[in-house]
Amino acid sequence: MNVLVIGAAGMVGRKLVAALVRDGAVGGVPISGLTLADLQEPDPPVTGMAVKCVAADLSRPGSAETLLADQPELIFHLAAVVSAEAEANFEKGYRINLDGTRLLFEAIRHAGEVQSYCPRVVFTSSIAVFGEPLPAVIGDSHEQTPLTSYGTQKAICELLLADYSRRGLFDGVGIRLPTIAVRPGKPNKAASGFFSGIIREPLSGQEAELPVAESVRHWFASPRAAVGFLLHAAAMDTALLGNQRNLTMPGLAATVGEQIAALERVAGRDAVARIKRVPDATTAGIVAGWPQAFEAERARRLGFVGETSFDEIILIHIEDELGGWIG
Amino acid sequence: MNVLVIGAAGMVGRKLVAALVRDGAVGGVPISGLTLADLQEPDPPVTGMAVKCVAADLSRPGSAETLLADQPELIFHLAAVVSAEAEANFEKGYRINLDGTRLLFEAIRHAGEVQSYCPRVVFTSSIAVFGEPLPAVIGDSHEQTPLTSYGTQKAICELLLADYSRRGLFDGVGIRLPTIAVRPGKPNKAASGFFSGIIREPLSGQEAELPVAESVRHWFASPRAAVGFLLHAAAMDTALLGNQRNLTMPGLAATVGEQIAALERVAGRDAVARIKRVPDATTAGIVAGWPQAFEAERARRLGFVGETSFDEIILIHIEDELGGWIG
Repeated sequence: MNVLVIGAAGMVGRKLVAALVRDGAVGGVPISGLTLADLQEPDPPVTGMAVKCVAADLSRPGSAETLLADQPELIFHLAAVVSAEAEANFEKGYRINLDGTRLLFEAIRHAGEVQSYCPRVVFTSSIAVFGEPLPAVIGDSHEQTPLTSYGTQKAICELLLADYSRRGLFDGVGIRLPTIAVRPGKPNKAASGFFSGIIREPLSGQEAELPVAESVRHWFASPRAAVGFLLHAAAMDTALLGNQRNLTMPGLAATVGEQIAALERVAGRDAVARIKRVPDATTAGIVAGWPQAFEAERARRLGFVGETSFDEIILIHIEDELGGWIG
Repeated sequence: MNVLVIGAAGMVGRKLVAALVRDGAVGGVPISGLTLADLQEPDPPVTGMAVKCVAADLSRPGSAETLLADQPELIFHLAAVVSAEAEANFEKGYRINLDGTRLLFEAIRHAGEVQSYCPRVVFTSSIAVFGEPLPAVIGDSHEQTPLTSYGTQKAICELLLADYSRRGLFDGVGIRLPTIAVRPGKPNKAASGFFSGIIREPLSGQEAELPVAESVRHWFASPRAAVGFLLHAAAMDTALLGNQRNLTMPGLAATVGEQIAALERVAGRDAVARIKRVPDATTAGIVAGWPQAFEAERARRLGFVGETSFDEIILIHIEDELGGWIG
């Protein structure tokens, strides 16, 4: 089976590629060729597998067609301009997140006009498709009323994915990822950055700022769980989806206070002492509009598995990023 | 105020134009100029008002810019390829219903870059944005999972309208119209045609075929109510909408049996005798997947008014289409 990963150089993309190379197969079907695409040519993984690394901008006409040259039976589409950038740059967000995805879907449709072709397409959507009104726990049949251009673009791509799948043009699964924590790497300016920062920095002996109250509740999955979602979506029986091709992934609802309690259990009081309360009204205001928890019953029934405690999320970070060591 | 009506030659478009010409104002603001656009140049209404009639295909680049030349403060966008055609012709449906609408929205955005411009945009969406799973009564926060390409295109345009409005690029209101009954004119091949046919034909002394069971329940508004929704959306205080710019219009839930009982009350047993039961499994199957009833509480609270009985819908047809006479 040929596999194509678009957005392979991102944080989740790199972890997905590592899992594909490690397993050598998806759902028991061996991978014969792997194409990794991103705006910048991704680094090739160390493997005996046939790997092609390409720089590609999906929003450029013809780009998707090139990526489909080997008729990949499985396509992961993770590429996106992130929320803050899509909000700051209207045209870029719509061009990459909407037009790029649509050009990919259209290239698949046109490839299927020449010869039989109906690949599995796994698309990463986001809980940003949800907005006002926000119940405390969002059900699986709740409306999509995004409050950002990013969320709008993801919601539109979900609708396209469902329609193309209904028509048999490809076999799509859209997965709405929770906020990923603990994100590895340096602190960033994203409004959600502190959710990872208050765990990651203290574990490495660094101080971290907490801009919101401990009562703030949000929806999390580890990077490892995210890769698990992608692999499950790639191999699942999509007949079980019917025409509802987009699924809210099972996350873990936790308050900041629960995050901190988990950190104390895992790493002790010294680690927790490195969290500095620096209240920030702007961040608090942004985060107040975010979803707090989801039912995600449908995805759980279909075999998607998230974490059950924030302790687990912290331990995964220590295992996967810190080599099992706390600094 | 300059007013632009796109899709002015359609059934609802013509009735809207008649109401605009009759009133000479919208929400108390006098209409100074009226531009009527459709694929074919619309017939000019009889009026002293300044009216421009233009043939325009929104999906052709530059077409929307031409329509905005007079900077209309109020834009009604009703133009669409209907459901059956959008399903039969994938590319045409997406080109007209999605790309055409997006080009209009983009033209408004670009006009606002040159000088201050933020028109009210009233967009007709449809209950076709709803699909599986379908509760007996669909709430105002129910997800959009359309089962047709037409419904998909309408749902995407709703998302765009909300995002452009949130960003202050225009002041949009999307209204999800119920199935319009009684549609005037000849019987057509639409799967929903019989809902109007079993009333319209008997009232004119003609026979009509009923392909489904009397227990089938659906969601209706008269053409007059549809025009009322459009005019209310044009004049309402959109600050009350917040970021939720799309509204399910209040319709009337009625079974086919209730339609027939209403016909008997209004026009007698002879009229009802003209309905011939001709069960058709294909039509019954299509209709089985359609919404039956909605809460529509939000729209009602915001002042949108539909009918309260099917008798009323029949009487409106007799008044508006038959000059008050039953054949």
